Amino acid sequence: MANSPLITSRQNQRVKDAVRLRTSRGRGQQQRFIIDGGREISRALAAGIHCVEAFVCEPQPDTTARVDLLNALRAKSVELLPVTPEVYAKLYFGDREGEGLVVIAETPKRILQDLHLPADPLVAVVEGVEKPGNLGAILRTADAAGIDAVIVAEGRTDLFNPNVMRASLGTVFCDSVVEATTAETVSWLRSRQFRTFAARPDASLVYTEANFCGDVAIVLGSEATGLSAAWNNSDVKPIRLPMHGLSDSLNVSTTAAVLFYEALRQRGR
Amino acid sequence: MANSPLITSRQNQRVKDAVRLRTSRGRGQQQRFIIDGGREISRALAAGIHCVEAFVCEPQPDTTARVDLLNALRAKSVELLPVTPEVYAKLYFGDREGEGLVVIAETPKRILQDLHLPADPLVAVVEGVEKPGNLGAILRTADAAGIDAVIVAEGRTDLFNPNVMRASLGTVFCDSVVEATTAETVSWLRSRQFRTFAARPDASLVYTEANFCGDVAIVLGSEATGLSAAWNNSDVKPIRLPMHGLSDSLNVSTTAAVLFYEALRQRGR
Repeated sequence: MANSPLITSRQNQRVKDAVRLRTSRGRGQQQRFIIDGGREISRALAAGIHCVEAFVCEPQPDTTARVDLLNALRAKSVELLPVTPEVYAKLYFGDREGEGLVVIAETPKRILQDLHLPADPLVAVVEGVEKPGNLGAILRTADAAGIDAVIVAEGRTDLFNPNVMRASLGTVFCDSVVEATTAETVSWLRSRQFRTFAARPDASLVYTEANFCGDVAIVLGSEATGLSAAWNNSDVKPIRLPMHGLSDSLNVSTTAAVLFYEALRQRGR
Repeated sequence: MANSPLITSRQNQRVKDAVRLRTSRGRGQQQRFIIDGGREISRALAAGIHCVEAFVCEPQPDTTARVDLLNALRAKSVELLPVTPEVYAKLYFGDREGEGLVVIAETPKRILQDLHLPADPLVAVVEGVEKPGNLGAILRTADAAGIDAVIVAEGRTDLFNPNVMRASLGTVFCDSVVEATTAETVSWLRSRQFRTFAARPDASLVYTEANFCGDVAIVLGSEATGLSAAWNNSDVKPIRLPMHGLSDSLNVSTTAAVLFYEALRQRGR
């Protein structure tokens, strides 16, 4: 398969470095992250994520999915490092043995200034969401709904946490997903004259009465702590979903989905 | 606190029976289930779930939440069984030490004939959903959106799985949530002349073009296997959400939220 010698030791330095990428601290220090799962690896490659190396478990049956992935990695000149099943067991995440390979990639730094937006853009801002599964679910829905950009403001989970990648189905790799501080985001939206709507349970305006056409931003906050004070300004219109039940709240990814699809509906897409 | 003697042994028969309720098999055999978490316990009591007994960890600080729960249980004549922290550690779920009590309840049998529906009802049918978290999330959203009933058809996870209760925030206890077979559901919808819409990725009709006013049922299937053949009949109108991204699917609970809130919007609530 690969030309490099088989790695048989769990103490191999490259293996140890890779395992450290399972922690947020390790990802921060190395500015790299680890990708599991065929779908996620394919999407990372397609999105132009710079993949550095792949650890490939050997021997393993040559399924079509595995062969396709290996060919895609070779086409991008990604170094393939064969490892024994014992070493591989240390590298993969949870139950995701998958196609028998994991990929190490450089963490992209995507900032507001990198965004290429169409006319009349619809963007989402996600501030301070803690749970990787919720952030991933929002990214997956934003992708499906055709949101032009997602700004992750003051992220409390790093974007390349395995659960974000997994819940997002790899849509986190799109170059329409950027990170910024809240201050940068507020000032960017203002300078570009976005009409900005913030989801708040105590808003008086019901979301269906909002006009989501034109240059529009939809802002979502953490379930635990809500939005920061930076969004309490007269530029920002609070909106809410009607709540008819026992429960007085929705999951933030559910709120996001309803708002994104209502915007889509109003915009005639 | 309680008058019963303190249970100090993990081998106590009532403790052992309670622990067995952590498995689907145990719940099936005993026709009981176990409730963790103050919010869930309160909602079960409010919804009229018959609570049989509560295991109460002692000693534990008398927080307001704990005192309120104990009073609510006493008001329903639920037997309180004090247990040591060692015994309690065997009873509670995951990280949910909560207020130091878990409740054992009889599994309600709620069927289609028990539903009390208003005029022009809006009901949801959830067929064959495997993941407890998804089923719970759908129930939470259905509650918030004011859906009049949720029919869980051919459930592949039992309704009183801890993750369903947790993800639903206890809305699973509402008497508007019933279980049925698909055949019963199809025949019930037909006899009551519901207009029935089924979410299918390959539908030609976009959901915003559907008319959700009147007696309407929205049917959702498993992400893995889709809807069963029983829904392939001319009574049932397939609908889909527009998909503009890389990913060709949405999580079933996300699809449910968008459809429920669009129905709500059209119905002017």
